[in-house]
Amino acid sequence: MRVLGIDPGLTRCGAGIVETTGRGGRQLRLVHVGVVRTPANDDVATRLLAVAEHVEALLDEHRPDQLALERMFNRHNVSTIMGTAQAAGVVAVAAARRGIPVAWHTPTEVKAAVSGNGAADKQQVATMVTKLLKLDAQPRPADAADALALAICQLWRGPLAARLAAKGAGRSAGQQHYPAATGRPRRVAGLTVTGFGAGARG
Amino acid sequence: MRVLGIDPGLTRCGAGIVETTGRGGRQLRLVHVGVVRTPANDDVATRLLAVAEHVEALLDEHRPDQLALERMFNRHNVSTIMGTAQAAGVVAVAAARRGIPVAWHTPTEVKAAVSGNGAADKQQVATMVTKLLKLDAQPRPADAADALALAICQLWRGPLAARLAAKGAGRSAGQQHYPAATGRPRRVAGLTVTGFGAGARG
Repeated sequence: MRVLGIDPGLTRCGAGIVETTGRGGRQLRLVHVGVVRTPANDDVATRLLAVAEHVEALLDEHRPDQLALERMFNRHNVSTIMGTAQAAGVVAVAAARRGIPVAWHTPTEVKAAVSGNGAADKQQVATMVTKLLKLDAQPRPADAADALALAICQLWRGPLAARLAAKGAGRSAGQQHYPAATGRPRRVAGLTVTGFGAGARG
Repeated sequence: MRVLGIDPGLTRCGAGIVETTGRGGRQLRLVHVGVVRTPANDDVATRLLAVAEHVEALLDEHRPDQLALERMFNRHNVSTIMGTAQAAGVVAVAAARRGIPVAWHTPTEVKAAVSGNGAADKQQVATMVTKLLKLDAQPRPADAADALALAICQLWRGPLAARLAAKGAGRSAGQQHYPAATGRPRRVAGLTVTGFGAGARG
């Protein structure tokens, strides 16, 4: 299973690809990490196109099974969120056009998935991503680490979310698209999780 | 000059194409009007793809010179604005990919352009659009009329905005892309407007 995580944005858009390896898919491997930057004085459409073309190239080169995006909420200011939301839409369409399912995770979900603490700060997330992927150095800038964390979150939480959604306990169906859960159930942090990788968390 | 106006959204996305005709381009002509609807229980990426494909088909069939989109502001609620912003991003990229300039107008600018009153209600805007385009009946639903109003706004205000921007009096360059002003200046509502169609306003 291979997931492309995207931390969407116009100034910096983080992209990280992680795949599961090993028996039962419990180990994580870094496939790609990078950041797209677009010039602030270009017009928005041109900047969005640059993001789209970069993500399309990653999808075509690395052929991920799923794409994970940050789900934004009311905490953000509308003026700062617009470019982010526009970029997220563009990225989601690039995946949909290729038949790649798109999953959305809140920052809290991502932080909880990689560090066990939904209130973790960026440094803690970056430290855990570095450790989980056995990297020599922390991915920089923070957007790159966040994108990898999103991918890891989807690898671990996706199957759980699919189970919850199937039980009618998930969030609105219109905002999510998860693959069917696979693997045998395991218990993590009080929740029954099915699928790959959850055991590698502790 | 032909403009595709898009009132972005997932539930309903209005699309209207208007062109200027006649001597000096003072008359307006309806080229196309329609609305794309996407099912609320489809996942967001699939809905965004449906919007993208519809707009791409319009761009390829009608080959507009410019695309006009609604610029959103803080008045909106973040939860309702997300799908709209995502759809706007997707539409902007479809235009940018084809080298078509994208202009953004606030609802106030659009209302002022077509009705002379920035606080006009939806009915007044629809009435003016119907009159300006010499239609037999009002475009329905409201999203369709709004898309046509956006196109008319760009046909009339685009050249003015380009002049203001050239003087350094415009809004942030990153949010706009206007073609060079054309035609001779004319005075409308206290502002000197260059270009096509402004005389048809009264």
